[in-house]
Amino acid sequence: KDSAYEQESDNIIPCDNFAMVYKEIYRSAFPTKRNFQFLQTLGLRTILYLCPEPYPTAGLKFYTQHSIRVLQYGVSGNKEPFVDISDNVIRGALHVLLDRSYYPILIHCNKGKHRTGCLVGCFRKVQKWSLTSIFDEYRRYSYPKDRFMN
Amino acid sequence: KDSAYEQESDNIIPCDNFAMVYKEIYRSAFPTKRNFQFLQTLGLRTILYLCPEPYPTAGLKFYTQHSIRVLQYGVSGNKEPFVDISDNVIRGALHVLLDRSYYPILIHCNKGKHRTGCLVGCFRKVQKWSLTSIFDEYRRYSYPKDRFMN
Repeated sequence: KDSAYEQESDNIIPCDNFAMVYKEIYRSAFPTKRNFQFLQTLGLRTILYLCPEPYPTAGLKFYTQHSIRVLQYGVSGNKEPFVDISDNVIRGALHVLLDRSYYPILIHCNKGKHRTGCLVGCFRKVQKWSLTSIFDEYRRYSYPKDRFMN
Repeated sequence: KDSAYEQESDNIIPCDNFAMVYKEIYRSAFPTKRNFQFLQTLGLRTILYLCPEPYPTAGLKFYTQHSIRVLQYGVSGNKEPFVDISDNVIRGALHVLLDRSYYPILIHCNKGKHRTGCLVGCFRKVQKWSLTSIFDEYRRYSYPKDRFMN
């Protein structure tokens, strides 16, 4: 019955862990097909993709159709960011993130937690946010939902 | 030493539980004096205040100085929203929230969790977000930080 309720309306499904970071900057987990309708509402120009793996074909096709450019800065998945994440890769990604010509832009990795959170943290540092506030935000997206509920 | 590090730079302190909800719509816990510098960066036109208590004088003075209007829709604090929150009050607040002439607007209650989360949930419903996504977002701001860490 619950799933029937969800299906009967023309609901929009945002990507998991989706949020606005700043004007025309968004963050999320890996978008799937069911998020495509939602992605269209954002009017994206750029995807900033932080995994080293090749992008899935379905996504690439959708982006091509909507003139969205994918920029890949592959960071290997670590549970401890700020330790093993390559400086150069993050610096490159941050450079893109600070360039308005790429906006509106969506940053994503797999879960939208550690790699995406690390890059957003760098962006907040540029914005001169206090470290406490930066870590609070980081944690908000990095703690798995199951941990909250179980 | 930690606090010295925080103080030595000219860091900006966002309000607790701060986030962008949508273009020119923000949410947070109750702003304090140390957040005033941050609030200026938002260029706010309106504060949408969801507690029944009178607004503190220091805040009102700051808002007057910056031509920010305070609109109060007082909801008594309940840990279970969607149950005891008055329909009429939330409807009034939602009406304000959907009127662009009030933007940029900051919604806040005390902790920026339940009352603010309830209103943001109504806004997401208007945006046709799926219920799952609405509750995921609600939870992200309503779970206390201490619970994560302890």
